[in-house]
Amino acid sequence: MAVYTEVNEAELASFLADYDLGHVLALKGIAEGVENSNYVLHVDAGYFILTLYEKRVDERDLPFFLGLMEHLAAHGLNCPQPVRNRHGSALGRIAGRPAVIVTFLEGMWHGCPSVRRCAAVGEALGKLHRSGANFAGYRPNALGLDAWPALFEEARARADEVRPGIAEEIAKELTFLTGSWPRDLPRGVIHADLFPDNVLFVGDELSGLIDFYFACTDELAYDVAISLNAWCFEPDGSFNITKGLAFFNAYEGVRKLTASEIEAFSILARGASLRFALTRLVDWLNVPADALVHPKNPLEYFDKLCFHRKITSTRELGLLR
Amino acid sequence: MAVYTEVNEAELASFLADYDLGHVLALKGIAEGVENSNYVLHVDAGYFILTLYEKRVDERDLPFFLGLMEHLAAHGLNCPQPVRNRHGSALGRIAGRPAVIVTFLEGMWHGCPSVRRCAAVGEALGKLHRSGANFAGYRPNALGLDAWPALFEEARARADEVRPGIAEEIAKELTFLTGSWPRDLPRGVIHADLFPDNVLFVGDELSGLIDFYFACTDELAYDVAISLNAWCFEPDGSFNITKGLAFFNAYEGVRKLTASEIEAFSILARGASLRFALTRLVDWLNVPADALVHPKNPLEYFDKLCFHRKITSTRELGLLR
Repeated sequence: MAVYTEVNEAELASFLADYDLGHVLALKGIAEGVENSNYVLHVDAGYFILTLYEKRVDERDLPFFLGLMEHLAAHGLNCPQPVRNRHGSALGRIAGRPAVIVTFLEGMWHGCPSVRRCAAVGEALGKLHRSGANFAGYRPNALGLDAWPALFEEARARADEVRPGIAEEIAKELTFLTGSWPRDLPRGVIHADLFPDNVLFVGDELSGLIDFYFACTDELAYDVAISLNAWCFEPDGSFNITKGLAFFNAYEGVRKLTASEIEAFSILARGASLRFALTRLVDWLNVPADALVHPKNPLEYFDKLCFHRKITSTRELGLLR
Repeated sequence: MAVYTEVNEAELASFLADYDLGHVLALKGIAEGVENSNYVLHVDAGYFILTLYEKRVDERDLPFFLGLMEHLAAHGLNCPQPVRNRHGSALGRIAGRPAVIVTFLEGMWHGCPSVRRCAAVGEALGKLHRSGANFAGYRPNALGLDAWPALFEEARARADEVRPGIAEEIAKELTFLTGSWPRDLPRGVIHADLFPDNVLFVGDELSGLIDFYFACTDELAYDVAISLNAWCFEPDGSFNITKGLAFFNAYEGVRKLTASEIEAFSILARGASLRFALTRLVDWLNVPADALVHPKNPLEYFDKLCFHRKITSTRELGLLR
């Protein structure tokens, strides 16, 4: 949401000396990305995004993220493309931070997606999972099931400030999920954060996926559950089965869910709800009341968790088979 | 430094329906402007800046600001140009806020300007003052001499937290300036905030002036003093007379200072120092310690005030005549 590291002229010039992009015409810090500093960079060669990785991103993960974006684009999925310098490297340093130039993707993100856009996202997620199958990189999910108890401990003492009784509810849910989490589902590269602000559209055409900085190796159907949660609920909290139908249908047009994925889906969806409820809860309790940037409401995801507890079949979510 | 108002698709589409700019290709919030929300807007017609005016800007002032930018550009000074819609209006509304589309200016701003760039700024300021002479708009300076006592009262009780004894120093300076402020100098449109972050360069060429939202009608030489302070001191606080010389020389290449302006310059420079010391002091004392955006140090401008108290002639600043 901010530019954390300012880039000065000398640093930029020295960084760009390794690239064949021409002169700097403009550099504007943009209000995107919570973890990184991002700039729109205009050079003779065109418009690009310059990203400086801040402390919350582990530098050792960068080859995975950059390699994944290159791999997906090579398989026809539109996402920012790291620009390699004359030495063949996509990753450099600027102002003491690891930095990369990626292509500028056209498109806007939209807060309240139409049915048609839910379908477009389902299809793109299917392609991501299919193309990711032969990606060599591996990165464990730092915010997967194993990480949730520690997140909960960070928030436990004050969780009931947000809604009375919620700490006990979470404790129970954690016990349930730990005991029943499926262990042998198809795994591969997942985006893990495919929310509306990470999907760009020009008109109704999906123009690209962005922000791969939570991407990791995990259960593919868990990623489907994360996206279903992010795209198919209305602002009032109700589930829109027409959107669910369009989303699943388009996903399965590219990659069919297996019988065990469908069977385990309810548990995955509860986990996908709890994961975002927990990270939002921690942020909610730790952001100063007078901060410019207001954290997202964790209750939205607790309500999704409650919804998924009541679901008895994926047919109720729109997966009609 | 942030995007305060999010723009959604429907609002943007409805706003753009009045313009002949084509389809929206991209919209990215940028981390510029403390008072407004700014976006890079890419449409078929090219790249533009979309600005939404937030509460700190008085809507009644907008015709002055927009008219001034059009006037200056018509006189050959490069600055953002308000784009008029089909009804001939540059000012519309989006998301409940007054909003305007302006042209995208190439260039970057630079923190530590070279002598050559100080000269370029002096020349541009001269052109601004000369071109502004026949601008019909009028706007009083809301942060001029008359406003300083009230600013001081906001900070007085805690001012000594910043540097012991400073409250008394300011009180004395205010008394002095109120008693000796020149009243009959040439007046006209001034930028009033021509700091390095408001001047863009492509290489060493000045490509444009931005951020006219403090512009007003006031003494021209007071604006010269503001810019001299902003451009000709080094990061360690020392005054660089070579930069002062280049700045004055280039300014006078366009507009000669009058004898009374030169005579009063020391008082204007003290006032220009105090004005920024006071607004920074108020911000410094009112921003929460854990805020993401750190306010600028007021002591930088107290030190400039002390410097100008010791100056006995504008020759010591680089005005060699």
